Order: sequence, then C-alpha cells, then structure tokens
Amino acid sequence: MIFEIAEIEVKEGEEALFEAAVAKAVPLFKRSKGCRGLELQRSIETPCKYRLVVKWETVEDHVVHFRGAEEFQEWRKLVGPHFSAAPVVGHTRTVLAGF
Amino acid sequence: MIFEIAEIEVKEGEEALFEAAVAKAVPLFKRSKGCRGLELQRSIETPCKYRLVVKWETVEDHVVHFRGAEEFQEWRKLVGPHFSAAPVVGHTRTVLAGF
Repeated sequence: MIFEIAEIEVKEGEEALFEAAVAKAVPLFKRSKGCRGLELQRSIETPCKYRLVVKWETVEDHVVHFRGAEEFQEWRKLVGPHFSAAPVVGHTRTVLAGF
Repeated sequence: MIFEIAEIEVKEGEEALFEAAVAKAVPLFKRSKGCRGLELQRSIETPCKYRLVVKWETVEDHVVHFRGAEEFQEWRKLVGPHFSAAPVVGHTRTVLAGF
C-alpha cells in the first residue's frame, strides 16, 4: 500500500466549489483498480492549499492504470478548473506507524 | 483533531539512523498533551525525503505545549543531527474523508 500525495492550490474564492467537486469525484476513485482510500486535507495556515491523499495498492495503479483511464479525464474535468497552479504529486510509503 | 505535517530532508546515507531515531522518539510524543498519533512516511521518488505526520487535538498542543516542553528538546537532539535542511512544517485538517 502506498500513498499518492497531491499538493493542490485552489483559486481564491473557489474553495467550496473545489471541495464539492472532490466529493463528486469520489466514485471515480472508488471504482479504480487498486484504489483503497481518499482523503482531502486543507491547510490551516494557507487555506487555498489542499493535500489530497489517495491510497493505492501500487504506484502503477495510480500513474499507469488511473492516469490512463477515463476516470482520470473525468476527475480533471471536475477539479481542474479550480486549480490555480499545476498540482505537485508524489508518492510515499509508511516506514513507521508509531501509534 | 489536526495534523502536523513536517517535511524532513535527511542527510544522504543517514536514512536508517534517522528512522531509528524517530522510533526511539515515539514515547516523547506519546506522553505529550493532546498527541493522538504519529506516522513516518518516506518518499518513493526521493528517498531522502520524509513526511512526519503527527495527530494533535489542537494546533496549540503542537506549537505551544510541545515546542515549549522538554520533550521537544529531546526530539530535536535525537533527529536534528540527521537533517540536511530545516524541516518545513504546516498543519492541516481533514475536510473530506471520501472512503
């Protein structure tokens, strides 16, 4: 299991629209191969900055299968208009689950 | 409940030492006021980059109580020598728990 971490900056004033678009997009992820969870976090210091955390079984499930699928096009159509910059995307794995 | 997200870059070759130091520091967080969880994630693309995710009841529990406590000094003594740059720290809250 790995995490996709997407840092997304949203146009000022479009935060509620963006959050609603992500909520609408949840089924796209839910039905994608290897997708095991999705959570949207919002920065407290910089409220136009969000962190989308998506759990995938493998990196390939995200970058090959999802990005090559129709679901990715639909996802970008829903949320893309609210981005103020290109998202910064990386992948992590948990190396220590302290408590 | 909020998340502290600390982006930490570790000196090349000191990754295992850093991970062991974080493991050793777990009790410092566990006994701190309002601390509800700790997880260490490691970047897949850039393995010297880590993301420490700490759950706190409030931002103040982290920036006022923890940073003002002896535990913070002990934490920095354990992990600080392995940092290659000053960590970048922010706070988030979950606005959507998709699934």
